[in-house]
Amino acid sequence: MTGVDLFAAVPTEVTIVEVGPRDGLQNEPAPVPLEVKVALIEALAAAGLPVVEAGSFVSPKWVPQMAGSDAVLRGIAKRPGVRYPVLVPNLKGFEAAYAAGAEEIAVFGAASETFSQKNINCSIEESLERFRPVIDKALAHDVRVRGYVSCVVDCPYEGPIAPAAVAGVARRLFEMGCFEISLGDTIGTGTPRRTAAMLAAVMAEVPATALAIHAHDTYGQALANVLTALELGVRVVDSSVAGLGGCPYAKGASGNVATEDLLFMLDGMGVRTGVDLDAVIRAGEAICGVLGRETRSKVAQAKRG
Amino acid sequence: MTGVDLFAAVPTEVTIVEVGPRDGLQNEPAPVPLEVKVALIEALAAAGLPVVEAGSFVSPKWVPQMAGSDAVLRGIAKRPGVRYPVLVPNLKGFEAAYAAGAEEIAVFGAASETFSQKNINCSIEESLERFRPVIDKALAHDVRVRGYVSCVVDCPYEGPIAPAAVAGVARRLFEMGCFEISLGDTIGTGTPRRTAAMLAAVMAEVPATALAIHAHDTYGQALANVLTALELGVRVVDSSVAGLGGCPYAKGASGNVATEDLLFMLDGMGVRTGVDLDAVIRAGEAICGVLGRETRSKVAQAKRG
Repeated sequence: MTGVDLFAAVPTEVTIVEVGPRDGLQNEPAPVPLEVKVALIEALAAAGLPVVEAGSFVSPKWVPQMAGSDAVLRGIAKRPGVRYPVLVPNLKGFEAAYAAGAEEIAVFGAASETFSQKNINCSIEESLERFRPVIDKALAHDVRVRGYVSCVVDCPYEGPIAPAAVAGVARRLFEMGCFEISLGDTIGTGTPRRTAAMLAAVMAEVPATALAIHAHDTYGQALANVLTALELGVRVVDSSVAGLGGCPYAKGASGNVATEDLLFMLDGMGVRTGVDLDAVIRAGEAICGVLGRETRSKVAQAKRG
Repeated sequence: MTGVDLFAAVPTEVTIVEVGPRDGLQNEPAPVPLEVKVALIEALAAAGLPVVEAGSFVSPKWVPQMAGSDAVLRGIAKRPGVRYPVLVPNLKGFEAAYAAGAEEIAVFGAASETFSQKNINCSIEESLERFRPVIDKALAHDVRVRGYVSCVVDCPYEGPIAPAAVAGVARRLFEMGCFEISLGDTIGTGTPRRTAAMLAAVMAEVPATALAIHAHDTYGQALANVLTALELGVRVVDSSVAGLGGCPYAKGASGNVATEDLLFMLDGMGVRTGVDLDAVIRAGEAICGVLGRETRSKVAQAKRG
């Protein structure tokens, strides 16, 4: 025993960003009807989740599961104080999102050149230049902008990504005006030491208070990585109700860390979130019923048992 | 970012104690044929696992899944340097285990009075007095003794267990001659801060080098708790191939942390184990095929995908 307090930097309060209705449903095989999406988002917000990602304005040609995000955004009964960000790939997407009432958007880049090319068809540099007018316009309309960085540990094409590369992209997005940078371990191969090394590099460029950790549970490592991020002072964690979503690079594998399992850890650690676990479990049961799939939350499975 | 090195006390080498053939199979509904058990144990040892729990000499009236553990112990082709401990409840069990060639046994107590009464029908104090002659006799025959303590965080009947109570039982077992104390979060409700508090109390009484962490993944918290234990200097981790086993207190829920997922974390952190992940995955596939159930290892699921 070292005498070191591992939890000295763990925040007393964490903001959970619920990404199930977007990152989750986007990676489920079947598109979900509008009214189901609206009900899911409303249930999650009612459970106390302060941020519920509501959709994506990427072309439905590429992501059919997110078609109709404008109708979703218009359809939800918005709760005061709850944020409903949507993904926006370009100016055209921003216009549509703004017209549908978006008050917060997210742009998405990568720390891997190859992934950037394959995922959004341009280099990292080109992607940043593409984001700039989107961010400028959003800020001019008082729309907040979140920045996603994917492949922060490994890339499915390139393998390991240098922490400095992640830090560079995160800094650029922060400097361009993103209020928060979500660091995504897209393929879930991160482990605590590598996650910490990546975070240390990023924190040298961007304040810890402006960072979020976005961990995928493909290899069962998500909560261990989230714990590491909390121990380093990260205060925002992305998660997905029922562990919705999957990994396009490993069929049948888990996707985002389940909100229920994250909450169980945070509740058990005395970290305040304002979220009602049982209400999230019920929202997860409802959407899993529609999707006809088993929840990936171990907490939901155990509590049912 | 605090500047604290979270990983300063993480060991460079970890001993994995594979409990699948005992704690795992004991909690699977159907008994498994002798030759399957033998093949499983041999495959796990061949994968490099240094300790493979091989069975239990509890009465088959109580644990039918473990009937024939003497034949299993006699049947396996033992690899030099690999340990094959078996559970022993009393002197009669020890005699049978010793006759079958056991060179290491484990006794099992609890940190919860109610759990002790319900699980082994006596008080904690009575259980320790019952272990004493077993340990004495084992040591007199050069048989090493491991001590299990269950309910180290919560008890299914009593709720939270005081860290001091865990420390007391651990110290007694250590003083009686157990070379290692395995601290079991039996119902898997532990979270990192509570796990750390429990470990801090135990480490004040028993050297960290004589401790093992035994985490159940019922609520998805196992690897986060294992990480915490490693960060506090624990060097021995119990796990179960394919996450075999379940939780008798939550039907359909996960049991032991999966060896594959633990290994993925340790490999990723540069912690040496001497274990071949792919070989463990193959052993898990084989036993899951016999049991007709899906692996609970996310690593195994992802690598297959």
